[in-house]
Amino acid sequence: MKQIGILGSTGSIGTQTLEVVRSRNDIRVWGLAAGGNIRLLEQQIREFRPRLVAVWEEEKAKDLRERTADLDVEIQSGMEGLCAVAVMPEIQLLFTAVVGMIGIRPTIAAIEAGKDIGLANKETLVAAGHIIMPLAKEKQVSILPVDSEHSAIFQALQGNEKEEVKKILLTASGGPFRGKKREELRHIQVEDALRHPNWEMGRKITIDSSTMINKGLEVIEARWLFDVLPENIQVVVQPQSVIHSMVEYRDGSVMAQLGTPDMRLPIQYALSYPHRWELSGERLDFWTLSRLDFEKPDLETFQGLRLAYEAGRRGGSLPTVLNAANELAVARFLEKKIGYLDIADLIEGCMACHRFIEDPDLAQILETEKWAHEEVERRIGR
Amino acid sequence: MKQIGILGSTGSIGTQTLEVVRSRNDIRVWGLAAGGNIRLLEQQIREFRPRLVAVWEEEKAKDLRERTADLDVEIQSGMEGLCAVAVMPEIQLLFTAVVGMIGIRPTIAAIEAGKDIGLANKETLVAAGHIIMPLAKEKQVSILPVDSEHSAIFQALQGNEKEEVKKILLTASGGPFRGKKREELRHIQVEDALRHPNWEMGRKITIDSSTMINKGLEVIEARWLFDVLPENIQVVVQPQSVIHSMVEYRDGSVMAQLGTPDMRLPIQYALSYPHRWELSGERLDFWTLSRLDFEKPDLETFQGLRLAYEAGRRGGSLPTVLNAANELAVARFLEKKIGYLDIADLIEGCMACHRFIEDPDLAQILETEKWAHEEVERRIGR
Repeated sequence: MKQIGILGSTGSIGTQTLEVVRSRNDIRVWGLAAGGNIRLLEQQIREFRPRLVAVWEEEKAKDLRERTADLDVEIQSGMEGLCAVAVMPEIQLLFTAVVGMIGIRPTIAAIEAGKDIGLANKETLVAAGHIIMPLAKEKQVSILPVDSEHSAIFQALQGNEKEEVKKILLTASGGPFRGKKREELRHIQVEDALRHPNWEMGRKITIDSSTMINKGLEVIEARWLFDVLPENIQVVVQPQSVIHSMVEYRDGSVMAQLGTPDMRLPIQYALSYPHRWELSGERLDFWTLSRLDFEKPDLETFQGLRLAYEAGRRGGSLPTVLNAANELAVARFLEKKIGYLDIADLIEGCMACHRFIEDPDLAQILETEKWAHEEVERRIGR
Repeated sequence: MKQIGILGSTGSIGTQTLEVVRSRNDIRVWGLAAGGNIRLLEQQIREFRPRLVAVWEEEKAKDLRERTADLDVEIQSGMEGLCAVAVMPEIQLLFTAVVGMIGIRPTIAAIEAGKDIGLANKETLVAAGHIIMPLAKEKQVSILPVDSEHSAIFQALQGNEKEEVKKILLTASGGPFRGKKREELRHIQVEDALRHPNWEMGRKITIDSSTMINKGLEVIEARWLFDVLPENIQVVVQPQSVIHSMVEYRDGSVMAQLGTPDMRLPIQYALSYPHRWELSGERLDFWTLSRLDFEKPDLETFQGLRLAYEAGRRGGSLPTVLNAANELAVARFLEKKIGYLDIADLIEGCMACHRFIEDPDLAQILETEKWAHEEVERRIGR
């Protein structure tokens, strides 16, 4: 029996995690946490019967308490609630699928309490990889990646040793603007950028995929997850998104993981690891697949990827600046307040004028985030 | 320090194995065996200083004894010599790179003596897989595949469990006649069939690759090596020979091994397993690779592959018939005594009139080989 908790249970990864749980009878969900979708949360409580649930706003927590008064469930709120779910004594494995810096603190709390982490919160490693990974090592907990690329790398590393890795080949679809030149992107509208060729995802991440900043953040995550320097992480554009990523070893052998674009696979692998369970769904058919293409990413057009490599190489507080500036810039782009190319320009501007911190602690990371948000607003307001 | 012996040291796999040994200082070669190339064998003895060497013909053994009279090496001959090298007390790992049924008996002797096997002799598993694999299990020795495809599968299985395998995806270049229809092959000449698009190999195996019988024999080998039924081994044509083979798991995940066409990689992996060592040489470059294609094999044109599936499914003595009939038919084709399409026709004829043995012992396997050779001659002579 796997004993789990899920932070961000009403989001895309959260609901798919529960879908995997639903298909099995050997997983017990003890805790859930979500932002504000209490209608869905109530359904989840009625179906999975967690003992503890956290809602971000106390107002909504109150509402949910009333809705679930007939059930034996405790409802908490705020960061305290998130952390309470994270450290529940019943759970072995915590899925962190909340979006944003908000995920870092409960993740640290869970690791300190000895929980394995099913990691779907990008910010945890992008901003705080230098804190998280040594802590996980000290507490001997596993950080199990719950996204397609990092799960692929993780799978391609099984049965091999860290010292034998030469480089990581992180694949990218290239997004809807692959092959375009920078100038052609100047007048891109929100609707154009929301059309991803292969994956169905939320709006923010779809924009990040179109700018390839998403891939840049993944480079930084991979750097921490697998202890490989950014210069040894090569982004390979693989437009069909069939190869989910690869690892090159020192003997020249390359191990790759391939699959259909189904997020349940990396989610389930985090649950079944080191084993594999049956999973329903479509299979790759190499007789009809026809072909796979490979390209070098265009760092001239996709400035965000170039900036992410720079942030990854320099480390410290820069990845936080990159992530926070991007977050707000994308929000403003989705509100049609700025143009498409402004996203990378704003990030670059913030990175250029940021006062670099070599080894930021959590408080400094959160301050840096705040500064970057304000700096983006200042620049837009000018 | 790895302590090894090599049967077939003057052939393509044998010399490349010694090339890997030469690049390292932690492998000791205790025994060598070869057919008749005693000039090369003498060089190998002077360089690697084995304690025991076997030459097939006693005449040549005598000659070699004189040539190496200044050295502390024992020279034996015949099957006795081969088996003596196979069971040398000093060795842990025996590379079986001789060609033909001759490889089976020393392989059995080595397994009985508790040696791990670096398996490059196809006939061992094609004809005697039902004897070899249970014996290896009983004696707890590892059978390490030393060819590109099976090594790829072996690598793709690391860190996973046998019960989790759904199917094996065995890749094939498709050979020089990929895309051709059967009738277009009627007047194929020896020279045409010897042009392999990706790999440099001996003449026999290059013809086998052009007829795809080679791939059929690999299906039968894979069936034994990995304990997967032929119906769960799917041949996928991958003309660039970059993906060396794949394994599909029950969760839909596909693990693949990719590399350049360099036989030293599977040879070295058999030596380094479960680790990986540095290996010089070209690396795959996905930024310039451009594309990989996939096709379904054409069983109408490549009758030999169809026949091999049939032999693999029915098992018993049939794979021996397939292999032996093919062996002689290819020899006669290389001598320009028969046409290209006659190869598969002769195999089919032999398989059709063979008196099937369900569970042949080694003597019956060797009798079956003899029968198939005679049957091919009879059919050609008609």
